[in-house]
Amino acid sequence: MQSLVQLYDIEATPPSLGDNTGDLDRLKKALSRYLEDRKPVVPFHRIAPVAEAFRNSGFKGCAAVIHYPDGPRLVDFFARAPEILVGMALDLGTTHLEASLVDLLSGRILERDTVENGQLEFGTDILTRIHFAANKIGKQTGLDLLHDRVLASIHSLAAGLTGKVGIEPGQIMALCVSGNTSMAHFFLKQNPYHLCREPYIPVVNGPDPFAASELDLKLHPEAVVWIMPSIGSYFGGDLISGILASGLDRQEETSMLIDVGTNAEVVVGNRDWLIACAGAAGPALEGGVARMGMRAEPGAIEHCAIDTESGRIEYQTIGGKPARGICGSGVIDLVAGLYLARIIDIRGKFRPRQPQAAGRLVPHGDGLAYVVVSAEESGVGEAILLSQLDIDALMRCKAAMYSILATITNQVGVAFHDLHRIYVAGAFGKHISPRQAIVLGMLPDLPLEVYRPLGNSSLAGAELMLTDASARARCKEVMAKVTYVELNVNQEFMIRFSGSRFIPHTDHTLFPSVPFYN
Amino acid sequence: MQSLVQLYDIEATPPSLGDNTGDLDRLKKALSRYLEDRKPVVPFHRIAPVAEAFRNSGFKGCAAVIHYPDGPRLVDFFARAPEILVGMALDLGTTHLEASLVDLLSGRILERDTVENGQLEFGTDILTRIHFAANKIGKQTGLDLLHDRVLASIHSLAAGLTGKVGIEPGQIMALCVSGNTSMAHFFLKQNPYHLCREPYIPVVNGPDPFAASELDLKLHPEAVVWIMPSIGSYFGGDLISGILASGLDRQEETSMLIDVGTNAEVVVGNRDWLIACAGAAGPALEGGVARMGMRAEPGAIEHCAIDTESGRIEYQTIGGKPARGICGSGVIDLVAGLYLARIIDIRGKFRPRQPQAAGRLVPHGDGLAYVVVSAEESGVGEAILLSQLDIDALMRCKAAMYSILATITNQVGVAFHDLHRIYVAGAFGKHISPRQAIVLGMLPDLPLEVYRPLGNSSLAGAELMLTDASARARCKEVMAKVTYVELNVNQEFMIRFSGSRFIPHTDHTLFPSVPFYN
Repeated sequence: MQSLVQLYDIEATPPSLGDNTGDLDRLKKALSRYLEDRKPVVPFHRIAPVAEAFRNSGFKGCAAVIHYPDGPRLVDFFARAPEILVGMALDLGTTHLEASLVDLLSGRILERDTVENGQLEFGTDILTRIHFAANKIGKQTGLDLLHDRVLASIHSLAAGLTGKVGIEPGQIMALCVSGNTSMAHFFLKQNPYHLCREPYIPVVNGPDPFAASELDLKLHPEAVVWIMPSIGSYFGGDLISGILASGLDRQEETSMLIDVGTNAEVVVGNRDWLIACAGAAGPALEGGVARMGMRAEPGAIEHCAIDTESGRIEYQTIGGKPARGICGSGVIDLVAGLYLARIIDIRGKFRPRQPQAAGRLVPHGDGLAYVVVSAEESGVGEAILLSQLDIDALMRCKAAMYSILATITNQVGVAFHDLHRIYVAGAFGKHISPRQAIVLGMLPDLPLEVYRPLGNSSLAGAELMLTDASARARCKEVMAKVTYVELNVNQEFMIRFSGSRFIPHTDHTLFPSVPFYN
Repeated sequence: MQSLVQLYDIEATPPSLGDNTGDLDRLKKALSRYLEDRKPVVPFHRIAPVAEAFRNSGFKGCAAVIHYPDGPRLVDFFARAPEILVGMALDLGTTHLEASLVDLLSGRILERDTVENGQLEFGTDILTRIHFAANKIGKQTGLDLLHDRVLASIHSLAAGLTGKVGIEPGQIMALCVSGNTSMAHFFLKQNPYHLCREPYIPVVNGPDPFAASELDLKLHPEAVVWIMPSIGSYFGGDLISGILASGLDRQEETSMLIDVGTNAEVVVGNRDWLIACAGAAGPALEGGVARMGMRAEPGAIEHCAIDTESGRIEYQTIGGKPARGICGSGVIDLVAGLYLARIIDIRGKFRPRQPQAAGRLVPHGDGLAYVVVSAEESGVGEAILLSQLDIDALMRCKAAMYSILATITNQVGVAFHDLHRIYVAGAFGKHISPRQAIVLGMLPDLPLEVYRPLGNSSLAGAELMLTDASARARCKEVMAKVTYVELNVNQEFMIRFSGSRFIPHTDHTLFPSVPFYN
């Protein structure tokens, strides 16, 4: 463990007629013995406060040094060593921001918290926000507003978290930010125009770390702001975080990392090589497609099972609340259950006369819908339905997912059964049952122990960067190592996609554990 | 020659689906081949303008990189290479600021100019200003005002100089500042309180280079501001400049550098070692003591000679204007002349009955004064006089000077005749006749060719720093090499001072070329 910010005990010889070195130079010299004889740089606005604190404390105390990639930076001086030294890790999600306060001395996580992304008002999805950014609103641009909102959300998180720990936001000495490439652009107030236009180029992948005051962040003015670098528009810093948190880049065996958000982002590799791609496979799983879809929040049906003989449905909601909708993992369970109970066929179409569906199929628009929860039982005053359109959307989504996984592994000549682990990041990884996803043909038919949920690996990666010098070194190596494959123009992907639009697959030898009900 | 700021021609491969690196990262990568594979740091506020300029110019053009001590910093991008790239060298004098614009591409000096130091209103001498700095004036401090004034003077110089060259101040890419330690503190807005109180400690000797925008300097926002470091309160960056400009630190032979301003600052040494000291010897020579004393400006008597037989005086004024006063070199010539004409004795006291003084000695206060220029002839409507008090002040001053030189050489076991050169910096070096200073016993009795005027070596040193990487390396070495001797508490100095209060010296074997008229 070597934190981004370090404290060093100083006891310097006081100045005299025979030793008239300036205050700051005296401190820098005393510090250099901790820094391989290197003298730290002092930012201009810290000269006066640091030199004064050093003199006022009798030329002894404790110096705070931030380890920038180009060398140490002396930013503060304390008469007495503080008990904790706080850094903030931040997952800059499209819908939510999650942050933790980390004690940089012990590496301990002090607090965690989540707030809604203040940008939601300007668009729930990234593409809407990118277009909004170009607007002129009075003297401001849409980008200004998006930037201001995300900063306000961060300030609210910082205030809440520091309050719980009993310190001030101005005492936060480091901020490590992990998010997708668009969110990073909004945060950095960089023009996102080219992110969504071929050939999809960011303004910047890996900005150099900078001081909080440069972005008007209300932290310690010299708090270092460290951005997880992106590799492309569709391969953000959050995925780099995932690689670091999973350890994919350190293992001898080849493994896979899947992160499903707005897109499905996939990395395959080991300590010698890493290959990555991204594709549109997410919305159905995030609650963006199913009519009664919702995020994994209290009242969401998170799991369900249909008895293959009786057709009886049992479900479980988050927090045990009356059902309000279905989240991604619930939809996967449900459609897998409908297939195993033969209520839908391999194309995902309802079989109206199937006895297990008795009383549960109702007309809906031009087609049918399955009643998951009756109006009386639900928490929203109406029945919770899954329509044919919802299933069709999930089918496209699961086909895309499987095709992405098959294409990327095929590119590097790795078979699914060669994979040591499949890490599944985020809420998706936390909630889904890999078994049901396998039944659908969304995930490869591998033993369940291969699948490992990662939790919020975007946040975990940011936490690692704060406290672990080897993670910072790995980040640089990962950036240099990853090969990115663009699937939007990939012929193989399109062919695979067609074959994957059946349950579990047109080629059912690929899924030996899944019953085939033609 | 390797300027602080360099231009590099860039022609990068445009982005494509197969090469989706961000704009800024693409530029940094293209630059790294000029920088030993190192990627330059881009300051946060330059990300957007640099990336945009790079994209808008079709990913080719010319990048401006500043070579900071901790590595290269990319600050601008031009579609077409500019014909000149301008840096400003600045001598931050107590009474005047002198600056030059330097073309960082060719090393050529484009223009030079001088303005009065806007701080003069708050005190002509440094000590007054240091005390003024502690005042509260409304919401500001004296330091704020001193800082604002010196910045205003710099902005006026920058506007004038760039106007002559046909560019804007915002195009100045570097500023190298050389001045005494107090002036550096005022410029950097650092508290000068301890500079004039034992043990005389600066807040900072060598601040790290920083961007102009951090000090609200109206230059290019990322223009690097490079301060010549000081060694102590009485050994400023201007003297480091002098060492660099004279080449003292590169020569095999031992030489001496004398810089007379508010203090006399002296360095002795060669490429292996450097020893330095400073002492109060300056005021009489700067025009601060003699009643009719003035700076070396038009109308100042700069040279004069008294016929040893007739006592006839001939003088020469700067610019040939009617005499308004006497500057330092004039006072030296005059007192030396008075001695050689036996009008004053070895103690510097008037001999009232000496025929050569006939008609020129007039009562003045409790004693006498010598009429240098009659009221009719002078340009100020009254006679220009040199009083006994003026001579006494010069005697103390010359005694201090000689004692400083003798003490410092003795400290290192070097005899005066071992000195290869004696460099004399500034206006003092430009105007004085070493011969007359030798007659007075102010400078050692050495062949005149040993003495070399240096001109404004403070400015010359700053110019070197802008264009010459070896000068920047030497500056660091000099800082590490100089031993500073504090004369304020030096017993030997006090003894030598007593012996030096005669013309030329109590031990006249030290001045074999000077006639001895007891």
